[in-house]
Amino acid sequence: MKDFIQRLSADQTSELERQYALYANGVQEIIPAEEFKQKIAKSLLENKPLKVKLGLDPSAPDVHIGHTVVLQKLKQFQQNGHIIQLIIGDFTGKIGDPTGKSAVRKQLTDEEVKHNAQTYFEQFGKVLDMEKVELHYNADWLSKLNFEDVIQLAGKITVARLLERNDFTERISTGKAISLHEFFYPLMQGYDSVVLESDLELGGTDQHFNVLMGRHLQEHYKKEKQAVMLLPLLEGLDGVEKMSKSKGNYIGINEEPNEMFGKTMSIPDKLMPKYIDLATDYTVEEKNKLKEDLKEGILHPRDAKIQLGKTFVRMFHGKEAAEKAEHHFLRVFQKGALPEDIPKVKWNGDQNVAVVELLVELQLLSSKSEARKMIQNGGVKLNGEKVSDVKLEIEIKDDTIVQVGKRKFVKLTV
Amino acid sequence: MKDFIQRLSADQTSELERQYALYANGVQEIIPAEEFKQKIAKSLLENKPLKVKLGLDPSAPDVHIGHTVVLQKLKQFQQNGHIIQLIIGDFTGKIGDPTGKSAVRKQLTDEEVKHNAQTYFEQFGKVLDMEKVELHYNADWLSKLNFEDVIQLAGKITVARLLERNDFTERISTGKAISLHEFFYPLMQGYDSVVLESDLELGGTDQHFNVLMGRHLQEHYKKEKQAVMLLPLLEGLDGVEKMSKSKGNYIGINEEPNEMFGKTMSIPDKLMPKYIDLATDYTVEEKNKLKEDLKEGILHPRDAKIQLGKTFVRMFHGKEAAEKAEHHFLRVFQKGALPEDIPKVKWNGDQNVAVVELLVELQLLSSKSEARKMIQNGGVKLNGEKVSDVKLEIEIKDDTIVQVGKRKFVKLTV
Repeated sequence: MKDFIQRLSADQTSELERQYALYANGVQEIIPAEEFKQKIAKSLLENKPLKVKLGLDPSAPDVHIGHTVVLQKLKQFQQNGHIIQLIIGDFTGKIGDPTGKSAVRKQLTDEEVKHNAQTYFEQFGKVLDMEKVELHYNADWLSKLNFEDVIQLAGKITVARLLERNDFTERISTGKAISLHEFFYPLMQGYDSVVLESDLELGGTDQHFNVLMGRHLQEHYKKEKQAVMLLPLLEGLDGVEKMSKSKGNYIGINEEPNEMFGKTMSIPDKLMPKYIDLATDYTVEEKNKLKEDLKEGILHPRDAKIQLGKTFVRMFHGKEAAEKAEHHFLRVFQKGALPEDIPKVKWNGDQNVAVVELLVELQLLSSKSEARKMIQNGGVKLNGEKVSDVKLEIEIKDDTIVQVGKRKFVKLTV
Repeated sequence: MKDFIQRLSADQTSELERQYALYANGVQEIIPAEEFKQKIAKSLLENKPLKVKLGLDPSAPDVHIGHTVVLQKLKQFQQNGHIIQLIIGDFTGKIGDPTGKSAVRKQLTDEEVKHNAQTYFEQFGKVLDMEKVELHYNADWLSKLNFEDVIQLAGKITVARLLERNDFTERISTGKAISLHEFFYPLMQGYDSVVLESDLELGGTDQHFNVLMGRHLQEHYKKEKQAVMLLPLLEGLDGVEKMSKSKGNYIGINEEPNEMFGKTMSIPDKLMPKYIDLATDYTVEEKNKLKEDLKEGILHPRDAKIQLGKTFVRMFHGKEAAEKAEHHFLRVFQKGALPEDIPKVKWNGDQNVAVVELLVELQLLSSKSEARKMIQNGGVKLNGEKVSDVKLEIEIKDDTIVQVGKRKFVKLTV
C-alpha cells in the first residue's frame, strides 16, 4: 500500500489522529492497524468515504445491548461520513443445514428472512441512521455462483487453514464431525467482502477467523485488502458469560423502559467500565471521565448505574422515557413506594383463585412451578404484603396489586 | 436389499453363478460381494440390464494395456447384455486447477476435451462395442449445479472422511497443502453415480475411495447404492511400477504390431499369469489352463509370451496382423535375419552426414545425446554392422539400412 499518511496536510493529519483515536477506543484489535490508518488517510486525501462492513445472521433478530457494541462503533464511522455496509446473510439462512443435524441452522423461508431483516432494521435504527446505510442480501450474488465458481472459490483456501479455526480444531480433537459444507460459511462471508469491496470489516473477537477470510479472499481476487476490527464481547448481567438471549443474561433494546433500567442496575460493579466503553454513545472524553471517577471512588457504582440505565433508556426510548424510568426507579426501589404507572388488568377469571394460578394467568410467571418457587423465595406480594403460603387462595377485589420481584406490578379490576 | 437370489429358478441360479464367476475372476475386491450378487439376481428376475459405470479423465487419452484391464472387465458385462456407462470427466477437465499450482490438472478447452474423448472412443472401440455403450459428459449435470446445490452435496460428507483418503492423509502428515477444491473431485465422481443411477462402478485399486463415494452419495440422495469392483493395477514392462505412459513401461494399444509384439516379449516371466488374467480376452477356462501349464513347466514363458504378443496384436490390429507380427518376430529375433517389411525413407538431406544427426532426422531417436548413448551401448547398426564411433560420418547410398535396438529399422533411398 502506498504511503498516504505522509501526503496529508497538517489539518488532515490531526483529523486522521482524531478519527483513529475514536475508532480505536474500546477495540480489541485492528488488523493491521497501520494499513487501517493508511485507509483513513487515503479517504481524507481523495475525499472518499470508507466502506465499513458488518455481516448479520438473519436467524436471530432480537437485538440486545451486546449487539450494540458493534453498532456504536459503526455509528462513529457513520457520523464521520463513512458508508456502512450491512449484509444480511440470507443465502446461508435459506440453505439451512444439509445434514439436517443442527437445530440452530434451520432453513428459513424467504418470508422469514425478510421479516427478520425488517426486525433488525427497526432495531438498528435506534443506533444508526438507516437512511444512510447500504443494505445488502448476500443471496443476490451467492445464489448466482455455479459449481465452477465455487470450485474457483474453494481453490483459494487450504484445508489446513480452515482446520485452524478454533471451533473446527476443537471438534477435530474431540472427534466430533465437521460436515464439508460448514467450510463454506467463512468462505461465503469472505466472498461478500470481495463483491462489496469493503475497506474494513467489524466483528466480535469470536469472528477473528471469519473476518480475516474476507481479507484473504480479496487478495486472491486481486482486490484491495480490507482491514478488520475486532470488538470485545460484552459479558451479560451474570458478569461471566457473553451476553446472549439463550443465556437469559441480556438487556434487549426493545424492552420496556423500567425493565431496561432495572436490569441495568443489576450489572456487576466490575463490568461498569466495559459497559461505559462499549455500549454507550458518550464521547471518548466523557467515557474516560466516568471511568476515572469510578476508579477514584468519586462516583459510586450505584450512581454510575443509574446514569447508565438512564442512558440506555434515552438511547432506545428517548429522553422523556429516560426521565420517567429514573423517577420510577428512585420512587420504587430507593423509597420502597409503589410505582405511579402500574398497568391495570381486568380480571375475568373466577373470583376466588389460587395465587400460583393467578400469577400464571397474568403472565407474570410462566408456570405454576415457577410461581411456587417465587413465593418460596419471598418474591410475591399482594397489596404490599409478602405471600408465604404457596397454596394460598384469595378473593380478587378491585385494585388488588400483585407484585413479582422488584419490577413487575399489576393492578386488577373486576 | 431384498433377497432376489432365493426367488431365482434353477436355470437362473446357474446363470447367476456363471456370471458371478466370470465377473469376479481376476478382480481384487467387490464391495459388497453379496449385494452385487443380489443385483445380478434382480437383473435376471426383472430382465433388466445392470448399469456398469466407468469414469474417465479426459486429459490422458493414450490408452495402453494397463487401461484395458478394466475394459476387458467391461466387455464381459457387455457380452452378457449389461449397459456400460462411460463418463468423460469433462467438467473437472474444463475447470483446471484454480490454485494454478498443478501442472497436471491444466485447464482443457471444449475443443481439447472433445478431441480427447474422440481419441478414447476410437481406442476403446478395439475392446468394446461402442454402439452399445452409453456415453456421458459430466459437465452436462455438474455445470448446472448452483452454490446451493453444492452446499447440499458438501453437506453429505464429513471432513474427517475426506481426510481418510490415502493421498490426503499423506499430504497432511508431510505438511503439504491440500486446496479445498480438491475435496470436490471425489464428490463429483460420486455425484455422477447419483445422476446416472449406476448399479456398479469399476476402478483400479487406487480408486477405492472415489468409487465408494458414489455408493455413499447415492445413499444420501435416496438412490439404490451401487456396488463397486476394484481391479488390480497391472505392472508395466519393468515389472515393478504400475503401467503408465509417464514411466515409459507401457504397451500402447495403438502401437505398431511389431512394436507391440516385441514389447510383449519383454514382460518379466513372473508377471505372465497376471497379464493373462487381466489383459486378455480369453475365457476363464483358457486362462486357467495357460496359467496351469506355465506353473507346471509344460509351457515355456517365452512361448507363452509369443502367444500373448500374438493375442495383443490380434485384439488391437486383427488376426492377419497378428500372424505377420509373429512371423516377423520369429524371423528377426529368433533367426537373426532382417525383417521383410522395413519401411523405406527417401533421404533429402546432405549426402554426407554424422550418424547421430541421421538418427535424429529419421526420428529413430529423439535427441543427439540419446543417439550418442545408443551408439555407446552398441544399439545402432548400419547395414547390419554395429557402429562404435559416436562421431562417425557416412555417405548415404541407396538401400542403406539403419537399425536401432532390436525393433526399429529404416531403409534409405536417395
